[in-house]
Order: sequence, then structure tokens, then C-alpha cells
Amino acid sequence: MRLNKNFDLLKDNYLFAEVENRVAAYKAAHPEKDIIKLGIGDVTLPLCSVVVDAGMRAAHEMGEKETFHGYGPYRGYTFLTQAIVAYYVERGIKIKESEVFVSDGAKSDIGNFLDLFDEDCVVSVPDPVYPVYVDTNLMQGRKIVYANATRENDFLPLPDESVKADLIYICSPNNPTGAVYDRERLKKWVDYARACDAVILFDAAYEYFVSDPELPRSIYEIPGADRCAVEFCSLSKTAGFTGTRCGYCIVPHKLGKLNGLWLRRQSTKFNGVSYIVQRMAEAVFSPEGRAQIAGNVAVYKKNAALISDTLKEMGVYHTGGVNSPYIWLHCGTDSWAFFDRLLADANVVGTPGAGFGKNGEGFFRLTAFNDYEHTQEAMRRLKKIL
Amino acid sequence: MRLNKNFDLLKDNYLFAEVENRVAAYKAAHPEKDIIKLGIGDVTLPLCSVVVDAGMRAAHEMGEKETFHGYGPYRGYTFLTQAIVAYYVERGIKIKESEVFVSDGAKSDIGNFLDLFDEDCVVSVPDPVYPVYVDTNLMQGRKIVYANATRENDFLPLPDESVKADLIYICSPNNPTGAVYDRERLKKWVDYARACDAVILFDAAYEYFVSDPELPRSIYEIPGADRCAVEFCSLSKTAGFTGTRCGYCIVPHKLGKLNGLWLRRQSTKFNGVSYIVQRMAEAVFSPEGRAQIAGNVAVYKKNAALISDTLKEMGVYHTGGVNSPYIWLHCGTDSWAFFDRLLADANVVGTPGAGFGKNGEGFFRLTAFNDYEHTQEAMRRLKKIL
Repeated sequence: MRLNKNFDLLKDNYLFAEVENRVAAYKAAHPEKDIIKLGIGDVTLPLCSVVVDAGMRAAHEMGEKETFHGYGPYRGYTFLTQAIVAYYVERGIKIKESEVFVSDGAKSDIGNFLDLFDEDCVVSVPDPVYPVYVDTNLMQGRKIVYANATRENDFLPLPDESVKADLIYICSPNNPTGAVYDRERLKKWVDYARACDAVILFDAAYEYFVSDPELPRSIYEIPGADRCAVEFCSLSKTAGFTGTRCGYCIVPHKLGKLNGLWLRRQSTKFNGVSYIVQRMAEAVFSPEGRAQIAGNVAVYKKNAALISDTLKEMGVYHTGGVNSPYIWLHCGTDSWAFFDRLLADANVVGTPGAGFGKNGEGFFRLTAFNDYEHTQEAMRRLKKIL
Repeated sequence: MRLNKNFDLLKDNYLFAEVENRVAAYKAAHPEKDIIKLGIGDVTLPLCSVVVDAGMRAAHEMGEKETFHGYGPYRGYTFLTQAIVAYYVERGIKIKESEVFVSDGAKSDIGNFLDLFDEDCVVSVPDPVYPVYVDTNLMQGRKIVYANATRENDFLPLPDESVKADLIYICSPNNPTGAVYDRERLKKWVDYARACDAVILFDAAYEYFVSDPELPRSIYEIPGADRCAVEFCSLSKTAGFTGTRCGYCIVPHKLGKLNGLWLRRQSTKFNGVSYIVQRMAEAVFSPEGRAQIAGNVAVYKKNAALISDTLKEMGVYHTGGVNSPYIWLHCGTDSWAFFDRLLADANVVGTPGAGFGKNGEGFFRLTAFNDYEHTQEAMRRLKKIL
């Protein structure tokens, strides 16, 4: 059997699997403990009613001959791609419908998009980083250079002009640090990418958490980005779709062959997203959908602010928590040891910074995806042990 | 921009896109014509009521905090993987739940599974072939050797012992030919694969159309197959899920590292299938679901039999049509020319054999996925022009 040897380069355990294993072991030993999870970035609030109604309606349609849907269009149904175009237009960004591709989520897209590139590409990823960017490239044997995100640069690294990258990952608002690029700093990446003829893979999965109008929610707010950047977005955090599965990416025609190549890849290795799910996604973009998801995100933002304020009060350095659902705090020690301590002494689950890269050591990620009462209780416990 | 140059090896147009283009051009020129589509293999009957009900129920659950579902398990929900295990057990095949992986469809799985293999693998695919097997390998730069399927071998090629393959594609019931391997011939492939240490990628997407108990519906009916074969299956044709999107694959632990590698690939580049869709898939396997889908498939089988009987009556050589929704007929001429003639003179759409490989030239594929009345009318027109 001739296997892909690059898999040997991957670490044995996916970060969140290891977190889950440790929590499960603790739970088994202490079944009476009330554990609060501020670890994996999964949403907790249910889907909005307008989205649920759309899903029920679409399921019903699928049972009637006149309204049944078989294979859908490769880029996604027009009702959804049009809604996505409109969502950009209202933020002053012009994109064409044929630049939008609907998918089952940003994680799939970000991994699968790599099929379009040479395996000898040099890949720039931030450290700390969402592990998927690294692992998907290692699987294809690519060389990775790290852009160091540290306290010194506000966890917002800038390009290293001495390196010639071919692919550049940027996630803003960032996972795991919660840090958000301003336009000026993001422009440095766009200029660098254009100078290198590199492609930026911009992960905008958390754009909906940005409320400061001074901060960009799309890379296309930066002039020239439509000549060098692909943008990945998801309804997972915006509308609670982690278990419903819908995302999209924007591949501008100005990027040359990429749009056609991606269509070719997707039409060969993918058959589109469930009609029912696409109708649910469409409902997210309706005026009622917007109002309802804003309510949900406000809950998470209130949690994030509470965590951030608590840390401020305690004098703990951190990033995020304002325009992001993530809070990245300095834990001043071995971050897996801090994980174990927080789990054992406060029964609170977070994610150790070391799991996101070498610059994550000494840091720790908390997420806003719980309800307010549990977040309050977690903060009370945190104060007690720190 | 450093692109994957292997994409240059792909032909410009995906077969079905070209079919669609020609039909659209004909329609535009002749808007009054009543076109009957027996071309692309898309189902036409709506989802069964038990499946629709499950979808509506699951959508409703997603709107309630107590029953909301975020990220699901990487292999799929237990309620579904257990149902799939039971589906195999009742056919006398023992598989473990951890050998089942739920996905958004067999097309995604078949393409993505290649991530696990070395790019220097030698790949055996039949000719004619479902183009996805070829294109997904060309994208990764693999060398393809063709197993010639011809009238002489009933379109069921056997292994060529002089070739050492690493990956072997078998689709039975076959797309596009409708031919079905018997156990004896399938065993030759299993023995060959084991002798070569090759992996068989067995596409069982049409297994539900097999009613002859002498013909295998799973490769695991062949002794030793669990040491060399991965099986891909789909609810697209079984339960009309082409627009709902759910499939699964079986990766036996006896295949060594493959099960773990696939889990690693899927947990890194995929986030599972919508909870709602998995509940709908579960309903397919319920006793009521089985009864209802059997009713739908009976309709398609009746169509297939009608097409096959008509061709027999006319003395036209063909395969399929009995244990398969596809009918592969000898059209005795340039198959794209036959396509154009059938479209123009009978207003019937099929798929030219040449689109499936060199051995497809002179042959033509018709599908049973229409209603009985349209299939009858198409046969009347066929008789008139042939």
C-alpha cells in the first residue's frame, strides 16, 4: 500500500481531541463536578426561528414532486449567492455572483482550496495559528514559514520582506488570539502579496463580531485585495451553523485562473450543499434573519466583554474579547499545565496556547460561546484561583 | 502564483456540463420542443414522507436550546452509523461502527480519499469510466492505466496480471454501463489486489438496484475484501438524496493505517454532515423508510426494464437495465453525433459514451431516472427514429 508519507509529519493528536480526552478523563474521575466549557469554539444558542422555519419549509418542499430539488448548481443556488453578493454590497464591496461559491463550511474550503496550488509553494502562516492551516499544508508536503505573533506586535504580525511566500494565511478577527487587523496593517499584507505574486487566503469566519467601524470585516475593503486574496466565510459563528454546515468563499475573477480552477475542483470533487441548508442560509441574510442573529451574537459579545473586563480588573494581559468571540490571555506558565489546573481547581475548560504554536506557550484561549450565567460563574471561579 | 500544473491535464469541459450546454443551446433555438431527459443521473421522485418528517423534526430541534446540535462527531452521529452497520449486518456482512464514516456524498469521498495515497501510485480505472475517478487522480498527478471494458468481456474487465496497480477503481453496478460483477469475477479483483498490495476503491452507489441475489451488492461479500477494499456508498440514488447530500464509506480496520488516516483527513478538512441531513438519512434506514424507498426504486427499475425491453425488441445490443438504473446501448456511430441526432430528432437527452472513455465510443447511456410516462414517450420516439 503506497500511502501519502506526508501524514507522518502530522502530530498524533488534533488539539481539540486532546482537550476532549483530558476533560473526559477528569469527568470520569469526578462525575459530580460541574464543568464549564469555554474551550472549543462551538456555539451554544439554538438556530434563529426564521432559519428553522426556512429549514422546515425546504424539507417539506423536498417531499413534493413540484418543489423537489435534485443536484444543485455547482456554485450554489442563485437565491443564496445573490444574498451573499448583497451582503457584501451593503458594506461597499462589489463582487459578482460568479465569484461566490457556497460550501459546507470554511474548514472544508480552506483545506480543499489547496488542491489548486503547487506542492512546492512556500506557505506563510501566523504562529499561533488555527492548526488546520498547518496540517492541511503538511499533508500535501508544503514548506511552512511562520509569521511570529507576539505580545510585541499585538499578536498581529506583519510580512517579513526577506521571505518570498506563495500562499499567505490571515485570519482576522483571529483564531486563537482574538486580535483584529486594522486597515493600515492589512494593507501591508496586500501590498506584500502583490509584490510576491502570492495569494492571500483570508479567513473571515469571525467578521460578524467586528463592531468597530474602523476595523475591516472583509479583506476586500483594502484596495488591490481583489487581485491577490480569496476570502473564506462561514455561518458557523455568525448564525450558529456549526451543526448545520454552510459557508462560502469569494474567488475574484481578477485573480486570474483561480476562479475557473476552483469551479473545476468543486464540480469534480463536491456536489454542493443540501438544498435545505442553502434555504436556511438564505434566511440568515433576510431582514428578520439579520435581526435575530444580531441578538444571538450580542449574547456572545456580552460574554466576551465580561471575560475581557474581568481579566483587565485582575491585570491580566490579553487580546481579543472586543471585536471577537475569543480571548487570549497571558497565563504565565506552561499552558497545558494551566489547562490542567483550571480544569481541576475551577472546573473551567479552555484551550492551551501551546496547542496553537510555539508563540502560544504561556497563553491560553477562552471563548465567549456559552451562556451569560455560566460565563459569570466561570469568571468568579477564575478570580478565586488566580 | 504557483498553481497546481496537473489541472492543465484535465479536459476543458466536464462531460455533464457539455451535455447541459448543448441542451441549453437546442432549447434556446427551439423553445417549443418538449425535451425528455434521460441524461444525467439525477433522480426525479421526491423524498419519502418519513424522510421529510425526520428533516422537519430535526430542523425544529435545532431551534430549541435543549435539542440544538453544534459540531457533530467526526465519523457521523451514532444513530446513523449504527443504522448503517445494521444495514450491512442484515446482508450478512459484519462491520464495526468505527469503520463507518458519514459524508456529504460518495463523490466527495471518492475524490478526497485520494489524499491518503502517494502521488506516484499507479491507478487502475475501467474504460469507459465515471470521469471523476480519472480527473481526481490527474489533479494529483497520478498515472492511470485503463482496464478495457468492451462488448467482448460484457463490459466487466478483469485484472491484467502484467500491470502492478496500487489503486483500483471498481463500480458495480457500473456507471455508465449498468453491468454488474458476479462474485466469481469480483473475487479475481480481490485476489489480484491482495497479491499487489493494492487498495480497491469500490463504488457501491447503485447497490440498491441489484435484485438478483446471485449478484453482490457489497464487495465485502467476497472473502478477503476487508483486507484490501474501501467501499463508498450514497443515498443519492437509493433514497433520492442528490439534492439532500449524504453518503458514507466503510474503511475496515484490517486495512491497516487507512482508517486512522481517513479519520485524520476528515477531522482536519471536513466538519461533518448537517445534523438535519443525518436525521433524514437515519429515517431512510428505518422500517418505514425502507418500505417507502423500495417503492421509489421500483419506479426507476420499471423504467429501466422498459428501456431494456424496447432495445431488445429492436435488437439493439446493450448492458444494464436489470440490476441497474443505467442502460448502455450500442449506437453504432460517433456517440456525440448520436447525442445531437437524438436531441434534434427525438428531443431525448442521453449521454454520449465517448464522454466516458475511448471504449465508450459507439455507445450511449440512458438512465431510468424519469417518470414512467416520459420514459414510455421517449421509447416511442426512439423507435421512430432508429
